[in-house]
Amino acid sequence: MTTHTVRFLPYKQEIKVNDGETIIRAAMESGIHINASCGGEGVCGKCRVIIEDGNVEEEITEKLTREDLEKGYRLACKAVVRGDVTVRIPVESKVDASVLNMQRFSRQTARIIQPDFEDLKEQGLFMPPVEKKYLELPEPSAQNNLPDTARLVNFLALNHDEHRLVVSLPVIRKLPDIIRKENFKVTVTIIRPVQKDRKSYIIQIEPGDTTNQNYAIAIDIGTTTIYGQLIDLITGDVRGETVEFNGQISYGEDVITRIVYAEKPGGLEKLHKVVVDTINRVIRKIIKQAGVKKEQVSSLTVAGNTTMTQLFLKVNPKYIRRSPYVPAATIYPPIRAVGLGLDLGKRVEVLVYPQISSYVGGDIVAGVMGTGMYRNEELTLFMDIGTNAEIVIGNKDWLACAACSAGPAFEGGGIQFGMRASKGAVEDFSINPRTFEPMNITIGNTRAKGICGSGLIIMVATMFELGIIDNQGKFNRDLDTKRIRETNGIWEYVVAWEEDNGIDRDIVLNEIDIENLIRAKGAIYSGCQTLLEEVGMDIQMVERIILAGGFGSYVDLKKAMTIGLLPEMDTDKITFIGNSSLMGAKMSALTNRIRSDVVEVTRKMTNFELSETPSYMDYYMASLFLPHTDMNKFPKLKARLEQRRAEG
Amino acid sequence: MTTHTVRFLPYKQEIKVNDGETIIRAAMESGIHINASCGGEGVCGKCRVIIEDGNVEEEITEKLTREDLEKGYRLACKAVVRGDVTVRIPVESKVDASVLNMQRFSRQTARIIQPDFEDLKEQGLFMPPVEKKYLELPEPSAQNNLPDTARLVNFLALNHDEHRLVVSLPVIRKLPDIIRKENFKVTVTIIRPVQKDRKSYIIQIEPGDTTNQNYAIAIDIGTTTIYGQLIDLITGDVRGETVEFNGQISYGEDVITRIVYAEKPGGLEKLHKVVVDTINRVIRKIIKQAGVKKEQVSSLTVAGNTTMTQLFLKVNPKYIRRSPYVPAATIYPPIRAVGLGLDLGKRVEVLVYPQISSYVGGDIVAGVMGTGMYRNEELTLFMDIGTNAEIVIGNKDWLACAACSAGPAFEGGGIQFGMRASKGAVEDFSINPRTFEPMNITIGNTRAKGICGSGLIIMVATMFELGIIDNQGKFNRDLDTKRIRETNGIWEYVVAWEEDNGIDRDIVLNEIDIENLIRAKGAIYSGCQTLLEEVGMDIQMVERIILAGGFGSYVDLKKAMTIGLLPEMDTDKITFIGNSSLMGAKMSALTNRIRSDVVEVTRKMTNFELSETPSYMDYYMASLFLPHTDMNKFPKLKARLEQRRAEG
Repeated sequence: MTTHTVRFLPYKQEIKVNDGETIIRAAMESGIHINASCGGEGVCGKCRVIIEDGNVEEEITEKLTREDLEKGYRLACKAVVRGDVTVRIPVESKVDASVLNMQRFSRQTARIIQPDFEDLKEQGLFMPPVEKKYLELPEPSAQNNLPDTARLVNFLALNHDEHRLVVSLPVIRKLPDIIRKENFKVTVTIIRPVQKDRKSYIIQIEPGDTTNQNYAIAIDIGTTTIYGQLIDLITGDVRGETVEFNGQISYGEDVITRIVYAEKPGGLEKLHKVVVDTINRVIRKIIKQAGVKKEQVSSLTVAGNTTMTQLFLKVNPKYIRRSPYVPAATIYPPIRAVGLGLDLGKRVEVLVYPQISSYVGGDIVAGVMGTGMYRNEELTLFMDIGTNAEIVIGNKDWLACAACSAGPAFEGGGIQFGMRASKGAVEDFSINPRTFEPMNITIGNTRAKGICGSGLIIMVATMFELGIIDNQGKFNRDLDTKRIRETNGIWEYVVAWEEDNGIDRDIVLNEIDIENLIRAKGAIYSGCQTLLEEVGMDIQMVERIILAGGFGSYVDLKKAMTIGLLPEMDTDKITFIGNSSLMGAKMSALTNRIRSDVVEVTRKMTNFELSETPSYMDYYMASLFLPHTDMNKFPKLKARLEQRRAEG
Repeated sequence: MTTHTVRFLPYKQEIKVNDGETIIRAAMESGIHINASCGGEGVCGKCRVIIEDGNVEEEITEKLTREDLEKGYRLACKAVVRGDVTVRIPVESKVDASVLNMQRFSRQTARIIQPDFEDLKEQGLFMPPVEKKYLELPEPSAQNNLPDTARLVNFLALNHDEHRLVVSLPVIRKLPDIIRKENFKVTVTIIRPVQKDRKSYIIQIEPGDTTNQNYAIAIDIGTTTIYGQLIDLITGDVRGETVEFNGQISYGEDVITRIVYAEKPGGLEKLHKVVVDTINRVIRKIIKQAGVKKEQVSSLTVAGNTTMTQLFLKVNPKYIRRSPYVPAATIYPPIRAVGLGLDLGKRVEVLVYPQISSYVGGDIVAGVMGTGMYRNEELTLFMDIGTNAEIVIGNKDWLACAACSAGPAFEGGGIQFGMRASKGAVEDFSINPRTFEPMNITIGNTRAKGICGSGLIIMVATMFELGIIDNQGKFNRDLDTKRIRETNGIWEYVVAWEEDNGIDRDIVLNEIDIENLIRAKGAIYSGCQTLLEEVGMDIQMVERIILAGGFGSYVDLKKAMTIGLLPEMDTDKITFIGNSSLMGAKMSALTNRIRSDVVEVTRKMTNFELSETPSYMDYYMASLFLPHTDMNKFPKLKARLEQRRAEG
């Protein structure tokens, strides 16, 4: 992708941006504040900049006169970078000038990591669970009249070092005719054992050489969406990928309502059928994308949370929502796909990721396996943040996990103008520390409609660091701005005035919203702290953080540390793995090493019920501050705040 | 059973017989000849004896006058022993007197052996493959909220030393509700692994204590009949037993016609369904007999010949009848009973005895396992004699097997007056060495209708030993008797004149019949000889013989040695095991030791295709004599014959 250099004056700051980026986003990335109220639609007309050198692509806007244009003025939100460009931010007041002296941080999101197939091979981690072998068997004769199956098995033992082979009945049934179809030249599909000394299974036999057609499917069953990938087992490439809404949504938005529905007569069967139908749609789509036949698919790996897994397997989840919250099982044996109603070949087995507890499911285990954190020395914190946040802490020696009820704040729930990360959500934010005017950037560069989780974190962190809110999330009542006001006894900050935004009211952030965010981040931080304390360690010892799930990819890491959601550390040590559940499912489709390790990992991982851990409540109470009651846990932030106070 | 002593004069021979036995059978058992032509129905009136002491129960017969009766005369075939009795055989001629000097042999059949459950336990061979355990699980609490399955598995590990447990999906599905039904008191059914280090499977869970209800079913699938036993896995007792004709009989009498039918469109499916239907009838009968519910049956073991096994498993047997005669498989993995259409619980697995080759099947392997010959030092010869005779030779170090096409002679086929062992068949026979008058005893003591296999062997052996036929089975043309005659150029002996027998012609034994018998016994003897030679041994080294199948139980062992069917040895070393296939199936229902050994045995057993073994034809030609061209192989017989010649 083409990149261009954008130089900001008078800040003398440069940034490389992709072709097509707007000036306002380039400024945000550089940590440069430009007043911008509307979210990027060119409505408020406040984000005026001067193009001093180079050219930008622009839309015509009534907010700029011909004279403005001739002087080089443009609206930063509408100016698209198509080449190197020098942009001057007009300094129109003392207030603006003082901003120059502030130490700004550019937004830092986590590096995305994905397992590398070649790398796995190099590490000796590639043990394909399903392999095809082409064989030219000797023809039977009076001197060599071994039974057909023995002929095959002996040949594999002698020529391919394959031992302890079991030939399933359906394969035995077709084997005599198939081996004679192309003159005793056949391709067999072998499922290897997870543990080396166990048996291998021959699950398919085809005439001739079909070794170049061998695929696996990986599925992530989310409560909302179901992702699927078709994986070429020869190359490791993803050959097809799609996502569908989980058909169960019609029966309840979250796991609890689904469980309630499953308890009704016929409810379990219905939810089971509906999710299997969705998965079948996903399967059909991805094999069509790749031009593959379903007979060429050898295995299916599935990961999902505990409730989704039980519904998929038609195991009633009713005890998950009843104290003491026990799932039916953690480890499931391999299950025949057709037995579950899946539209795959008869002998395809489904490998289901094991669960840890009712609220730490296979999606999390898949993440732990996929990231390899269970194999590393470093003390790693794995987080999948949503309404229910799951946390795993540990390294190659030990693993502990817990689920926290963070509440829906990170997904925009319980926030007056909260919304999901969709078009019109303020996702990035900056504030002028003197005028308190905002710089809002919305998803889709459209008029603001609300605030999404990542935007919320940035807002609260920014305001806290500038002293606009205090460590309890209360607004400084003495600031000279119309934007901070009291409405019906609740203090709030106006993010976007009605005339600038896309709805019929002012969009505000109020103290109740901030309180909710603090509770959410406190639940997670204190969860980590409790887990670590239970194993005799401290959260400051965390060396690496892995973020999973949709939310994690957008979080501004520095800001997340500022509010005390993440412990302070070098942002290079924080990585994002996207859909960890799907990644884990894919990994176990590719290598038996994961399959063999997962049982051990599942056993090793200690689940803590935070509600049953006495220290949790204390830690939770102590974390209901920005960033925490104990500032020494955030030494860099502490230093910055002290410096800021000293500078006045 | 009450027994009585019968004393025969003037022979001074005594015998203990069961209450209700006839005098003629007591005489036959003692090796005493009494002329008796009709077979035991009192028609010929030749078997007159004098009761000198004691009493017999008798039928009124016109063959004896009042005067005869007063003198103590009775017909031996109609006189029933009800107390100790002294019987004089009237010596009416010099000819009869000379019979006294003959060394006679009483009929000796093989001892019946059946495995002893207690004995197995003592030998440490009792490793039940399916066991029930009653558990009182701890109730879940906030402090102990393990998943339900983990709760169960951990409890079994800690308190019952059960490890590597796999809980199947159907059990997981019902487990949460079942464990809560009787307050966490449950009974689990565990299938143990055949190899110790492998996994155990929990296949059933029931509320409360049901450990006293645990059954297995053993099935022998014969070409003609299907036997079933219901076995109590707690005591080892057979609680139900039945037999049904194999429903496939309508589609062909023997395996070859069945295979031909199976090749027709839909034929395989039809034969599969029909045999499964028969087995379901057997299952329903035996569980009804025992008052057991099908849910209490935990396992099913099956043995049958290769074709029957393949048809049962819906594996097309077409290559069995085509050169080079290969079966589809030898070893089958455990198969779910319901998947085959069997009317048993969902989780019941069928264990199918492995095959050796197209014509040495699971019925034979079951016999080898059931008898324990694979564990013994002694060189043992195992024979299942029928149209196809299967032979296994070996000991704990090696095993070799072969199938011989003996032809139907032993089952009465290819013999002019041959018949199956049913009512009216001459089953025992003696001959007066001077008058050549026969003593015929028929099954059911009725007028003779024909000759069964065991009767045929006795006739030929007796006539050979008395010089009535020579070592090529040819009648001595010079003997002074009407009974030996030439009809349409074929020499024959009249066993029962038309007026004495139950059919409309004289019943004869001719030279073609004898030739067929010699070919049949020659095929088997030379088969054994070839097998032994292939492993560098000699048939004289055989230390023990095990006879299986219906035929073996009736064979007069000494006579079988005289014709050269069996090698000469102490008759104590010959045992009969009845339906070896059913016995082996029962044994593997009772102990995993058999299941674990059988794979090894199957691998170890070398199958010889006699038609491909060059020496076989030579040995076969050499054995087409009575007992053999090489009389040194039968030293005792040789000595007797020499003595007889010396005595003139």
